[in-house]
Formats: sequence, structure tokens, C-alpha cells
Amino acid sequence: MKKHNFSAGPCILYPEVIKGASEAINNFKEMDLSLLEISHRDKNFVDVMEEVRELSKEIMALEDDFEVLFLQGGASLQFCMTPYNFMKKNGVAGYSITGTWAKKAAKEGSLFGQVIEVGSSAEENFNYIPKKLKITKNMDYLHLTSNNTIVGTQIKDFPNTDIPLVCDMSSDIFSRQINFNQFSLIYAGAQKNIGPAGTTLVAVRKSALGKTARDIPSMLDYEKHIKSDSMFNTPPVFSVYTCLLTLRALKHNGGLSIIEEQNKLKANHLYKEIERNELFEGVAKKEDRSSMNVCFLLKDESLKEKFDKLCSEAGIVGINGHRSVGGYRASIYNALPFESVRILTEVMNHLD
Amino acid sequence: MKKHNFSAGPCILYPEVIKGASEAINNFKEMDLSLLEISHRDKNFVDVMEEVRELSKEIMALEDDFEVLFLQGGASLQFCMTPYNFMKKNGVAGYSITGTWAKKAAKEGSLFGQVIEVGSSAEENFNYIPKKLKITKNMDYLHLTSNNTIVGTQIKDFPNTDIPLVCDMSSDIFSRQINFNQFSLIYAGAQKNIGPAGTTLVAVRKSALGKTARDIPSMLDYEKHIKSDSMFNTPPVFSVYTCLLTLRALKHNGGLSIIEEQNKLKANHLYKEIERNELFEGVAKKEDRSSMNVCFLLKDESLKEKFDKLCSEAGIVGINGHRSVGGYRASIYNALPFESVRILTEVMNHLD
Repeated sequence: MKKHNFSAGPCILYPEVIKGASEAINNFKEMDLSLLEISHRDKNFVDVMEEVRELSKEIMALEDDFEVLFLQGGASLQFCMTPYNFMKKNGVAGYSITGTWAKKAAKEGSLFGQVIEVGSSAEENFNYIPKKLKITKNMDYLHLTSNNTIVGTQIKDFPNTDIPLVCDMSSDIFSRQINFNQFSLIYAGAQKNIGPAGTTLVAVRKSALGKTARDIPSMLDYEKHIKSDSMFNTPPVFSVYTCLLTLRALKHNGGLSIIEEQNKLKANHLYKEIERNELFEGVAKKEDRSSMNVCFLLKDESLKEKFDKLCSEAGIVGINGHRSVGGYRASIYNALPFESVRILTEVMNHLD
Repeated sequence: MKKHNFSAGPCILYPEVIKGASEAINNFKEMDLSLLEISHRDKNFVDVMEEVRELSKEIMALEDDFEVLFLQGGASLQFCMTPYNFMKKNGVAGYSITGTWAKKAAKEGSLFGQVIEVGSSAEENFNYIPKKLKITKNMDYLHLTSNNTIVGTQIKDFPNTDIPLVCDMSSDIFSRQINFNQFSLIYAGAQKNIGPAGTTLVAVRKSALGKTARDIPSMLDYEKHIKSDSMFNTPPVFSVYTCLLTLRALKHNGGLSIIEEQNKLKANHLYKEIERNELFEGVAKKEDRSSMNVCFLLKDESLKEKFDKLCSEAGIVGINGHRSVGGYRASIYNALPFESVRILTEVMNHLD
């Protein structure tokens, strides 16, 4: 049965990516070997790593000062790599607390130095993005989380500051056009718009590194990873290759300008139904609503069983809200077709 | 063309594992969804994680005090997780320097405290295993590397000591019967005998943790990973599932007692040819030779082109020696069939 997959991540990937990944497992580049069985030093894989790093830079239009890495450990490992590489000894960093993940990032940062909350929407359960951030000149960096996956908020305008900007873009990277060059460090777990779980994209400014005077363990040191072309040790070969397939598809389909329009169409269609339909209400404040994760509640909980049944019959999966919010969360990442959103709104429309 | 894959890692996997991995990418457990597209919190994947952890414990016959984790970052990340979790502040640890990887592990350890070389075969290019280790009572742990992948040596007898034993078993775990309960920490990158690159098996004694008085970043803290059942954050779903397929196949084929005998047969067959054939010589000292990585040199380098051509015609791939040693390295991990070793010795036999 055809599924409409609204999972929050790992999430839907383009059909040609699934097909290409499966083929590579059976026979990679006509080597008569599986992608899983070859050395990562084999030219056929070295080429993959080179292409995926270059293509990422190209799609984000990054300046030459940037290097893109594909590491392991998810955004959670970046929570400690960020201070290791960017916070001076006895240093200070600002964190904007826009959700659970931002909070976790700040907690890890506090193991390394002073963490200052420059803003927080915790008192309203993170349903908006704090705007006027209390940034001070002594901060080694300002940490942002571009999209709150759990509540469905998204930063539309990034602060204009001289402090190095660090951004966790795990749940909305490659979904829209922004000036990626305003950041010193961008990181994103692959499992939303980049590929399958198991690798993390890191884009880092070389000129911003080497300033903390810390002894950094090799695997946590961006400079070491850059020096070894993102192969300091065996990379997560399969995940990296599948990311390449996704980025090729993204470029082939028109890049960020086209995907941004498609994502807007999907989000607008769904938010319009939530506003129109008296049985539902949105979770996030309107001006900060995410174009990736659309969170909504049933006003009348007694309709839940019926709505869930209708969704299930229509092949809709993965729309349960995060346990901390409840209700529903439709994650409408890049690879989700408009058709799936149309089906979902149809089901919402038929509920009464 | 049928290949005989002697790659050092990532390396050959069982045919049924390749098949199962490819099938799961197209449709996982008849969900009409790809394994790559489902939430790691979906019961279908939670079951996978539970089974692979349990099965690992079962195959190693580990006591209840152990927990098995499937983490990211390879053995290289364990090089810093080990001291973070096991070395007290101002502590001391012993490292046996049996190769390049042991040396790297010791280097990372030295960022956290005093590292003492309890033994080293560096002066003979690591072609043997140092036996009489200078262990002292004040050591927080003793770090060993069970198999040297580059030169082809292997520890046959582990030291008998009260100091907590830590062992990097990346290149020979699950290849033979040993008393795994003598260790406090075992770790192994998956990409030899466990599965594809992208995950790392960690078996750790719970009772040995929580003693360093360090502030450990969450992602580097074994206790945090144990507490969240090896899903502190999104795990490398595909790699973990493929490890499960491999361990199921290992168990199905008879477990460690049978695989040990099969590995001995392969290694003996190949070492016998190296000893018999006057054109070749082995790299490692006989008593310490590895049953996983068989390293050998051509005595007469002018025969190299001819030998490489014969290998290539026979479908033999991945036997180039590590660049630091030269010559040849036949990695004969669990999944490599005896047939491939037979073909290789035939080619060696026909060289003149």
C-alpha cells in the first residue's frame, strides 16, 4: 500500500535515492562488489566523499573559507564539539533557547565554560522564536537552532552580529535559501533533508578554528577532520553515499530556490486547512511557524480515534506529535510530495 | 565476475547479509516503507536494537554486569571515551603499544592523564606482541589491542591482572572463543566481523563506571548511553540493522566455536603456502601471527607485476599491503569463504 510518510526523522527520502542505495548494496559502480564491502580508501569511494563535500558547498553557495565534513555522532556530538573548537578556556557563549534541543546544546556547552541564555521561549513551551537577543561582545559564539522540530517553529531572520554564529540546522537545512556565509559553523544530522541516519554534515570556517587553546581529542577536532579530507577514520560509507544521492537529486530538481517554493506550497496548504478547519488548532505562533514541521491539535480529543483511523486508511503514517506536545506533527521535509499533503488535508477536511 | 574480497575493512559480508540489507532498504518488515525512512522509535526498529544488543551478549557469553551499546564514531572515538570514563583525574593508564592503532589510542589517552607504555614492539615495526608487560597497581586500566590489522599480529594470551582490562577488538572480535568476561571494556568498529562501517560495538561493565569524577559530555558518557538503551540520540539505523543480520548469520552458522575452527583452517592453509613457497615471506613473527590479517612480501619485487596480474585475473581484490608495510595483506575475516583462500594459494603456487 502506498504510504504518505510524515515521519519527523529519519524520514522520507526521494524514491530515486532509495533505489540507488539499494542498487549500490548489491553492486557498487559495476565493481561486482557491494558498497558495504569495499575499502573507504578505494578511489570509487574517495570520489563519493569528494563529490558530496563539494556539492554541499555548491548548494549552500559557501565561500572558499568553508570546509564541509561528513562526521558521525549526530547533532548531539556537535553539542560538545562546538565548545571544544569555539569556546576559549574560561570563555563565554550565548545560546538562544528555542526548544529542547537548544537546551541540550546549552547544557553541553556549560561543561566547557560560561553559557548565557540570550533568549528563551521556555515559559511558553517554545511556541515562538525569541527575537531580541541579549548578545554581548565577550561571547566566543552565539548558538542558534534554526528549526524546532518538536513544536514547529523556525527562525526566519538570523541576528546581525559580529559574534561568530553557530547554527544547528538539523531539521531545515537545504529547505530554503538563506545566506549560509553569515555563519562560522553549521551542523545538521543527516536524517531529515540530507539522507539516512548515521552521518552529520558540518560546514565550518577554517579561519575561525584554532583559537581555543584547548587540548582537543582528535575525533572532536574539526581541524584534524579537515586535514584528512573528512576521512580521519573510516567514515559511515553507506550513509555518506546515500547523502550524495539525495543532494544530486536536490540539485537535479532545481536546487534551493525551487525546493523553497515547493516547501512553501506544502506548508501553506496545510496551515490554511488548520486555520480553516474548526476542529483543529496550530501549536506555534503564526509568524514563527515552521515550513518543515507542522504541529497541530484536535480541539475535541474525542475525535482522535476517528481521525487516526481515517489517516491510517489513507496510508498516512508518522504524524503523531512528540510526546512532550501531544496532538499531531506533520513533517513535510523536502522529499515529501505535495500529493501527501493534499491527502492529509482531505482527511482533515472529511473529519466531523 | 565473482570476486574474492580480501579487503582489510570495510570488508566482505555474508551474502545473506547483503541480500537482507538491500531488501530492508526497499521494504522493511513489510511496512511498505524503507528501513531508511522510519523513526528509530518505531517498535520495528526498537526491536532490532534490543535484539542486536542481546545477541552480542549471548555470542560473547557476557555476564549480567555487561551492557552492549552500538555507538557512532568508530574505535577512534573510543580512544577518548576510554579515558573520559575510566581514567581518574590525575590518573595513570597502561598501554601496550602493539601497532599504529595502539599508539593512536595511547596518544588520545595522554590528553587526560599519565600514559605509561607497558610494552612496545615499535622497534621491530610491530612484527610481534610484547609479552612481559610492566603493569603497576596504580593504573586505572590497561589498554590492549587484540589484533594488529596492519602487520598481522594477534594477542593469543591476555595478561592476568587485577587492573581493569580495556581492549580494542576492532579487527578480530567474534573470530574466536576467548573469555570476554576478563575485560571491563571491549570496543570494536563494526566494519570487519560485525557489519558495515558506521557503528561501533561497545561492551562495558556497569560496575566499572562512574569512578573518574570527570564532567563527561553526554555523548561520550557510557552511563548515559546505557540509560537510554543505546538510543541516546538517533542511532545509525542502517548499520545497526546490518550488524544484526551478520550476528544472526554467525549464530545460525554455529557461533564462535565453529567460526574459530573455520578461521584456523583458512589461516593455516595460507600461512603454510607462505612458508612452503620460496618466492614469499611472512611479515609477523610466527608465534604471534594473526588469524585475521595475513601479511606477506614477495622476496623478488620484479615478480610483483606478474603476481598482481594473476590475482586480478582470478578475481582477487583488496590484498595490497598497508602503505606502511608494503607487500600483501590478505584479510580473511569471518565472512570470507575457504574457497577464496584456496584460489589465492593456487595463484601463489603458480607464480614462478
